[in-house]
Amino acid sequence: MDKIKVGVIGATGYAGAELVRLLCNHPYAEIAAISSKSFEGKKLSEVYPNFLNVCDLVLTNEDDLLAKSQVVFASLPHGLSEEIAVKCLEKGVKLIDIGADFRLKDAQDYKEWYGLSYKYPQLHEQSVYIIPELMRDSYKGQPIIGNPGCYPTSIALALAPIVKNNMFEENGIIIDSKSGATGAGRNLTQTTHFCDCNEGFAPYKVASHRHTPEIEQTLSSLSGKSVKVSFTPHLLPLNRGIISTCYVNLKDSYENDKNYTYDAIYDLYKDFYKNEKFVRVLPKGSAANLKNVKYSNYCDVSLHFDERTNRFIIVSAIDNMVKGAAGQAIQNMNIMFNLEEDTGLNLVAPAF
Amino acid sequence: MDKIKVGVIGATGYAGAELVRLLCNHPYAEIAAISSKSFEGKKLSEVYPNFLNVCDLVLTNEDDLLAKSQVVFASLPHGLSEEIAVKCLEKGVKLIDIGADFRLKDAQDYKEWYGLSYKYPQLHEQSVYIIPELMRDSYKGQPIIGNPGCYPTSIALALAPIVKNNMFEENGIIIDSKSGATGAGRNLTQTTHFCDCNEGFAPYKVASHRHTPEIEQTLSSLSGKSVKVSFTPHLLPLNRGIISTCYVNLKDSYENDKNYTYDAIYDLYKDFYKNEKFVRVLPKGSAANLKNVKYSNYCDVSLHFDERTNRFIIVSAIDNMVKGAAGQAIQNMNIMFNLEEDTGLNLVAPAF
Amino acid sequence: MDKIKVGVIGATGYAGAELVRLLCNHPYAEIAAISSKSFEGKKLSEVYPNFLNVCDLVLTNEDDLLAKSQVVFASLPHGLSEEIAVKCLEKGVKLIDIGADFRLKDAQDYKEWYGLSYKYPQLHEQSVYIIPELMRDSYKGQPIIGNPGCYPTSIALALAPIVKNNMFEENGIIIDSKSGATGAGRNLTQTTHFCDCNEGFAPYKVASHRHTPEIEQTLSSLSGKSVKVSFTPHLLPLNRGIISTCYVNLKDSYENDKNYTYDAIYDLYKDFYKNEKFVRVLPKGSAANLKNVKYSNYCDVSLHFDERTNRFIIVSAIDNMVKGAAGQAIQNMNIMFNLEEDTGLNLVAPAF
Amino acid sequence: MDKIKVGVIGATGYAGAELVRLLCNHPYAEIAAISSKSFEGKKLSEVYPNFLNVCDLVLTNEDDLLAKSQVVFASLPHGLSEEIAVKCLEKGVKLIDIGADFRLKDAQDYKEWYGLSYKYPQLHEQSVYIIPELMRDSYKGQPIIGNPGCYPTSIALALAPIVKNNMFEENGIIIDSKSGATGAGRNLTQTTHFCDCNEGFAPYKVASHRHTPEIEQTLSSLSGKSVKVSFTPHLLPLNRGIISTCYVNLKDSYENDKNYTYDAIYDLYKDFYKNEKFVRVLPKGSAANLKNVKYSNYCDVSLHFDERTNRFIIVSAIDNMVKGAAGQAIQNMNIMFNLEEDTGLNLVAPAF
Repeated sequence: MDKIKVGVIGATGYAGAELVRLLCNHPYAEIAAISSKSFEGKKLSEVYPNFLNVCDLVLTNEDDLLAKSQVVFASLPHGLSEEIAVKCLEKGVKLIDIGADFRLKDAQDYKEWYGLSYKYPQLHEQSVYIIPELMRDSYKGQPIIGNPGCYPTSIALALAPIVKNNMFEENGIIIDSKSGATGAGRNLTQTTHFCDCNEGFAPYKVASHRHTPEIEQTLSSLSGKSVKVSFTPHLLPLNRGIISTCYVNLKDSYENDKNYTYDAIYDLYKDFYKNEKFVRVLPKGSAANLKNVKYSNYCDVSLHFDERTNRFIIVSAIDNMVKGAAGQAIQNMNIMFNLEEDTGLNLVAPAF
Repeated sequence: MDKIKVGVIGATGYAGAELVRLLCNHPYAEIAAISSKSFEGKKLSEVYPNFLNVCDLVLTNEDDLLAKSQVVFASLPHGLSEEIAVKCLEKGVKLIDIGADFRLKDAQDYKEWYGLSYKYPQLHEQSVYIIPELMRDSYKGQPIIGNPGCYPTSIALALAPIVKNNMFEENGIIIDSKSGATGAGRNLTQTTHFCDCNEGFAPYKVASHRHTPEIEQTLSSLSGKSVKVSFTPHLLPLNRGIISTCYVNLKDSYENDKNYTYDAIYDLYKDFYKNEKFVRVLPKGSAANLKNVKYSNYCDVSLHFDERTNRFIIVSAIDNMVKGAAGQAIQNMNIMFNLEEDTGLNLVAPAF
Repeated sequence: MDKIKVGVIGATGYAGAELVRLLCNHPYAEIAAISSKSFEGKKLSEVYPNFLNVCDLVLTNEDDLLAKSQVVFASLPHGLSEEIAVKCLEKGVKLIDIGADFRLKDAQDYKEWYGLSYKYPQLHEQSVYIIPELMRDSYKGQPIIGNPGCYPTSIALALAPIVKNNMFEENGIIIDSKSGATGAGRNLTQTTHFCDCNEGFAPYKVASHRHTPEIEQTLSSLSGKSVKVSFTPHLLPLNRGIISTCYVNLKDSYENDKNYTYDAIYDLYKDFYKNEKFVRVLPKGSAANLKNVKYSNYCDVSLHFDERTNRFIIVSAIDNMVKGAAGQAIQNMNIMFNLEEDTGLNLVAPAF
Repeated sequence: MDKIKVGVIGATGYAGAELVRLLCNHPYAEIAAISSKSFEGKKLSEVYPNFLNVCDLVLTNEDDLLAKSQVVFASLPHGLSEEIAVKCLEKGVKLIDIGADFRLKDAQDYKEWYGLSYKYPQLHEQSVYIIPELMRDSYKGQPIIGNPGCYPTSIALALAPIVKNNMFEENGIIIDSKSGATGAGRNLTQTTHFCDCNEGFAPYKVASHRHTPEIEQTLSSLSGKSVKVSFTPHLLPLNRGIISTCYVNLKDSYENDKNYTYDAIYDLYKDFYKNEKFVRVLPKGSAANLKNVKYSNYCDVSLHFDERTNRFIIVSAIDNMVKGAAGQAIQNMNIMFNLEEDTGLNLVAPAF
């Protein structure tokens, strides 16, 4: 087959650069163009020397890129992707938006959490939000895919089986997440200055992170009821990975109902994900560790039970830049182009 | 005054070595002897070269140490301190136990969580467990002080005002803690092998950590009711510090009761700790970060409110080796010897 | 073509585990068997959970492995590979030794630096030591390849052009190398205990590291004269990579000889490596950084000139586990089996 | 005695903030004022929350500060301290300059390496550059002390005994230094962005770092001859500390002259520093490690001999922010005010 011509808008951002890394080894895709506002005219390898002799493409502008591409990944701050989408639709180019602009179905949520309104509401009817393991059937040829956020991916995969089966007490879900510093991107900030971040650790945006409505949208959709969560992200002094530790009060106890034993819920998870290559339900007694998924597209999930409080604790680990961004975006591209979902994603996490 | 003659048993363990570091600058204490089972006969500075020319004492055995000391810090694995305590009482030496053997009042808890029985139950009547900010009045001249664990200290200080005032829903407390690798001690393990720990992050002993009954003992004592918590520790890839992120469902809402507004609870905390040098209630809008407390005896506490779920989130930060171990032990020694509580503890956390 | 059946002896050591990671994506190789003395009978993924669902092979013993393999990688402590080699030759299995036993041509060097004698001297006549970029022509069908050490690889590639052209003062070479902690392997040691290694940095085995004779063997062979170097390795608080900073006194000055200008020597390097995919001579003004090569098979080389002292400074960066071990071993396997040298090695270093 | 009234100009830079940390515990100094151009009007603890309740002074301007101080530490980019010095002399305030403006005696060197000319040459006759262990006798009441740079301190202390005794080959000195990221200061740069610095390592400013003339000035002064060195700094992925690995070709060999044995030179070092509290010549067989000096004013020195090349290798370790900046500045203040040199500097390096 001819290779798919791919464009990456925002290729010098972290998600963009990771896309380039992964696309370099995708057997059915070729990078047709890459663009950057800040570095137009430079080679990517001048910005990121790891790409020297690997991808020495010159960063171009969006219009040039759109002219060369069949599908475009847009990795931009929120508020900028709708205009890209308009142009894509005009030109018949498909769009996978890595940013936040095509994630929230409810325009009110977008307004409340991002402070902006959708300018082209009809665009959003042509887009679909997809975490492949949970929603691949929603893909019906839409020209736009809203690629999920990193935290929401890690949390949805952790909670889906128990939420879909409505085994949890409503409003009892607490999610304590920890992300590596790549999650904060390439922009220089005091928080991600080496001496501040190294040997430091703290929560940020407690109970106010913009991924909250996206998390609730997915959980509500899975359960069929409105789900509210408390979500607290923290910044880890390491480069990659997210651990989400999710606390769920069970609706019933194993004394009343055999479906509520640890073993029954463990089996439920194993069964739920039995055909999913990228979700690994860990053996009983193990705990998900982000070192086992880094640089790969895996999501590891471990299950724990606090029988003293009848609370289930589910821990998930992903690489925020792969399964949480570029890898999942390629998974979505594979869906869009009817390829095997794992094409180009056979990434083995290094052992160290 | 004559300096207090201090002995440190287990001086080559991490808490022991940290005690030596702090005692070197205590104006009213002198290190009379240090002991170690593994390194008897060696100088401390041969084991820890940072002590070269600072503390070159030779590590001796326990009996020799007891003969030279007025007060002894024992930093030993659980199960070993009772025998030390017996000898101390015989010789009229005071004991501050850094280990776990004098923390739990209920022998049954000790048996359940540590798998051992108290051999000398009467000893425990002569001992007292003290987190100074919450329990200094319990000191009535007892010859033995059980020094609190690191996690329990960080959690008790985070929750005390809200628990003592019974503003929380029982059994709704969830504590997600993260500790630096010094918490795992000097012993070599795969988990703390550099390449495993670095760029890794995971929970451990989920819902089964031995500090759980100690946490519940303190919270139950403060509230006057039996409190059960879910407690999940995680291992951070850094040396020092504990962040405890504590989730509390409020008993009432601010719509019904003005004591349940964020501002009211913030004021409650400020007032509760207004005379406490070592507990800093951070300004509104800040989040506790362990980088601001490392190498110091401070406990920083930040308060956050998730009004969408009527949940209060309290975050505390301590240095696990100082306020979580050696520093608090010296605070307790100061109480024991009627010194100003902060004597020898004017440690300024470095900015980086 | 049929895939090459590959065995990995010592698969639970760091080099072994990295070989498995890379072989998983080699298009013409399949892992026929893996072995381990310490973990025989366990799955690799029980020892390294990153391999779960990726390589769940059971670790077997050497004899079983030899029966299943066409080529064997042996990743063992020195002194153990000769016996493996004897068995390989008996069975017609090829051997790539990742350890130190087939690196030194001079048995006396081996004895002096490793404290052992070759038991089967004739074996060493059937073996060849290959850094592909410098010695691939030495491969004449030998059944055994001695895979180079990590430091010697980084140093030989840094110095080859200037040494081969005899532009340097003899005995003036000083090499200051810094390696990540994977270089110390999986064994637990105090030095690689997280709290000792993290935020620490020091040299080790100053002027006495066993890689010294291997470095000198290659440099002497390139120059045709006996070369002696001072070599000091240091341990970096990070997982992967080696930086070698090499100081060379030039034999002549650019005032006398135009071949001794910075530009002339830079051109010499560019030309020397112009057909070498895995050696990147960086643009003038750049400095080699191990972050740009990690998880890849590249060796980055940067050139610097101290005209005040007429000294050339060459810096090389490799991933010690890839170009310094498993990647180069696969490069050697590709040579052995007449494959393109980069087969299975199209690894793009991540940007972060 | 009355406490010395101290002002810190540039208190929000890294060296300034470290000065505040150390001055907080100096028994004979009090912080009279602190200033900052960028943060005037804010509390120091708003910029660095570690100082909350410890030093909540409001940052003022330079004139206000000068009016309140007997001695001023200026921690500023080069080119700004002469104007401060003029004002200090006018007001009879003493000055310790932490920046680069009073380090180089030769105005030509300053011009060549810093690109600026001294505006007030006569000021420099009233100033003196002091590494206390080597030059304390140069203090004759001068109103200005030029505080040494971090790298030059670590290197001068490593080389002084061998250089002062002229045991080295001229122009054979090579210095390979490695510094933690605090050396790059508080300013945000791509190089010190967490994800770039973490798990990365590289040299910078190879053979062109501005500390070179300062290093040569001290070595030349000690030896009485003009000394030229090759100096290469590297950036370590950790917060604090400098390791300098210094290579020296010995002038003679131990075969000819018994002063050139390892033991003789070791004894020379021990004797040279026998009265120096802050320089620790490590036991034979040890290597200096920055983890043993961090957060302290010590300089650890280890000696190594490469007899194969008749080269001496001296390794020194300091905390770049303490002995390399703020600690040494306080040592110089103590000299200026005729206090014991270690006053306020009894800092015990933590073991971890």
